[in-house]
Amino acid sequence: MSIDPRYLTDWSGLSRGIPKVVHRPRSTDELSAIVRDCDASGQKITIQGGMTGLAGGAVPADGDVVINLERMNQIESIDELEGIMLVQAGATLQQVQEAAEQAGWFFPVDLGARGTCQVGGNAATNAGGDRVIRYGTMRDSVLGVEAVLADGTVLNSLTRLIKNSSGLDLRFLFIGSEGTLGIITRLTLKLQPVPGAGATALACVSSMTQLAKLLRDMKLALGNKLSAFEFMSERFVAQSLELTGLALPVDTSAPWFVLIEATGEHGTDAGEALQHSLEQALEKETIIDCAVAASIADAEDFWRLRESIPEILTHLRPTVNFDCGLPWSQTGDYVAAVEAAMDEKFPAAKHLFFGHLGDNNIHLITGPHDESAFHEVEETVYAGLKNRQATISSEHGIGFLKKPFLHYTRSDAELATLRRLKSAMDPKGTLNPGRVVD
Amino acid sequence: MSIDPRYLTDWSGLSRGIPKVVHRPRSTDELSAIVRDCDASGQKITIQGGMTGLAGGAVPADGDVVINLERMNQIESIDELEGIMLVQAGATLQQVQEAAEQAGWFFPVDLGARGTCQVGGNAATNAGGDRVIRYGTMRDSVLGVEAVLADGTVLNSLTRLIKNSSGLDLRFLFIGSEGTLGIITRLTLKLQPVPGAGATALACVSSMTQLAKLLRDMKLALGNKLSAFEFMSERFVAQSLELTGLALPVDTSAPWFVLIEATGEHGTDAGEALQHSLEQALEKETIIDCAVAASIADAEDFWRLRESIPEILTHLRPTVNFDCGLPWSQTGDYVAAVEAAMDEKFPAAKHLFFGHLGDNNIHLITGPHDESAFHEVEETVYAGLKNRQATISSEHGIGFLKKPFLHYTRSDAELATLRRLKSAMDPKGTLNPGRVVD
Repeated sequence: MSIDPRYLTDWSGLSRGIPKVVHRPRSTDELSAIVRDCDASGQKITIQGGMTGLAGGAVPADGDVVINLERMNQIESIDELEGIMLVQAGATLQQVQEAAEQAGWFFPVDLGARGTCQVGGNAATNAGGDRVIRYGTMRDSVLGVEAVLADGTVLNSLTRLIKNSSGLDLRFLFIGSEGTLGIITRLTLKLQPVPGAGATALACVSSMTQLAKLLRDMKLALGNKLSAFEFMSERFVAQSLELTGLALPVDTSAPWFVLIEATGEHGTDAGEALQHSLEQALEKETIIDCAVAASIADAEDFWRLRESIPEILTHLRPTVNFDCGLPWSQTGDYVAAVEAAMDEKFPAAKHLFFGHLGDNNIHLITGPHDESAFHEVEETVYAGLKNRQATISSEHGIGFLKKPFLHYTRSDAELATLRRLKSAMDPKGTLNPGRVVD
Repeated sequence: MSIDPRYLTDWSGLSRGIPKVVHRPRSTDELSAIVRDCDASGQKITIQGGMTGLAGGAVPADGDVVINLERMNQIESIDELEGIMLVQAGATLQQVQEAAEQAGWFFPVDLGARGTCQVGGNAATNAGGDRVIRYGTMRDSVLGVEAVLADGTVLNSLTRLIKNSSGLDLRFLFIGSEGTLGIITRLTLKLQPVPGAGATALACVSSMTQLAKLLRDMKLALGNKLSAFEFMSERFVAQSLELTGLALPVDTSAPWFVLIEATGEHGTDAGEALQHSLEQALEKETIIDCAVAASIADAEDFWRLRESIPEILTHLRPTVNFDCGLPWSQTGDYVAAVEAAMDEKFPAAKHLFFGHLGDNNIHLITGPHDESAFHEVEETVYAGLKNRQATISSEHGIGFLKKPFLHYTRSDAELATLRRLKSAMDPKGTLNPGRVVD
């Protein structure tokens, strides 16, 4: 039986080989039995969700047994009183969002792949997305998990309690470990009150130092109301304007732009608070200029600028894309150093920085590049992160593709501890072998 | 050299023996060297913070080496821009709070023992306290840790990034594991914007079902502004009124009372939003009656009711005290069943329920009891938690005293996994042996 090509690669485009078989179990018990059989024979397993990963983590090798969760996609129950959902790991993020909405609640994790990515994969990679500044990452929305361990044991740790101090909380073994310590099969998710409509503004800023000061002032003034703080470099904005044909209501020659959104509780308007804090920023000269969206169409235009990334990726392809993380105070230096190095080494390519500053997350799209240059591009970008309390991946994960660079931002003792835990939880090395660490 | 008695027991009053020596290292290196020596000889270690624990976790046995962190108490640095503190584990919670305040920020974890408890101990037990409904537990305020492992290795995982997806996040091995997997020596803490003044109200409610509905409505209307939701049973309130001489501005014959606090951003007033949501609750008859504090003195009276616990503990001693956790929908049944069982078995004692419903946390103070009855009291209270997705400890931890009951609310597979991790991280069993699991 031939294997459907959709199980052979993810959005990274990596290819590794042809698996022996693709299992799509319908229940935890069925999945556990498959894992038990693999354990008995030392058979290597590749675990798959929606195949939207960018680090190759779900891509199988020749001879692997693939376990894809797509048939375990039921919303099992929603506690409408407390705002808690019990869901199977193969449900898509969009299913979860829609089920929450129907129950009068809100699931805050959101990303472009929502219709395809699975909530189990979101948890396994600790997905972030667009609303982290207000709601945190996937880790902050998962209250408990059920996972199948390497020997087939079903570990039920589906707690749903906000506060618990009864020994190590085992959900954290599986959140962000990319399927190397167990297969998440079900999750309890924390839902949030439905928020109000957002108020949106676009500001231009003279430097990364001012941008960080602006963010601090906005956090102190708006607190939890601050729901987006998306910065873009001048070059990013110029590229976006060229491709989208948008016209901006602010000076387009500033070095940095930032899209700011404030959101209150349902039925409240955060516009006044946002307006007030922008006036203070103008007075303090933290910003050069700003515009507040007066209509939904305005707000959509501002977001369109930020969301032109698919067009940029197409226009500049082949690109290399990054999701680094740094302290705010390191960001200016880092961006200046990497931009200069990239301009020198790759003068024909464009290097566009943008990101979620409040989450410490700096994205870079750079291209076009020949595939032969990819490694040097990566080396240039990642080497700049050393000794900056940084991370090579804020949200995409390590998988196979970033593994060679992991030691740039994690210590030897950390890597040794990752290996020790892997040996303890998966002594035969059958679960997602080769991902994250060797 | 005789041992100072303050290193022999904690606030639980448990005694186990006389340690061989009490070390009070001044640095991570010094601490690591002590641990390395113990590892070489298989010497058992008891780790100590401020000795304010209630589960006996820091109480040494005969012949133990004690490592007390009290001299590692420096606030090492504060990033005032980003609101992040690097602190040694032996700093008291109050030191942390005060240092945050001086830097223009706010550290939200708070509990009565703040002047004595150490922030490393707070992390090791995942302390909760009074503001969890708004800010989460200690886990939500710790961004990274440095820990010394059982073989003396210094594991630096002092990340300070909000978002990170670069392999397993190792801080979660140490938060809540009560020193069984490593000794936390330094932490990076996330600070919060300074909040505004709280608006306070007291409401009476006809049943636990109505109380849960009220909480849901308050969460949906107030969102993150809801900063306290402290419920008390009629018996708790009657006992408190008797001991404090307070007079309440609401009907004191209701079965449940709840102290509600709303807090906005610094410089804003949450009073109007609280008032509005209470009016809606009166209309919907979710509450019977309520009073909003019109002055700081009023608010202090309302809080005094909740904070009469030290007098209650003295008045009813010897007491047995609980910090169970349950889903909201289970709380009414559970309280009714346990209250009835306790009334029948211990008619001469008082059984006072109260807690933080938004955190799923139900406290019970029961007393006076002969020490010979303690086990039956515990058995009665904990047995009721079985099969309710509950926890025997929401915030105090397991230590020695709750260990016999841990299997009531954690599965066999969970306990086996805890043991497996303990063996992997501490194969000789020298770090805090006998705590949490055997």
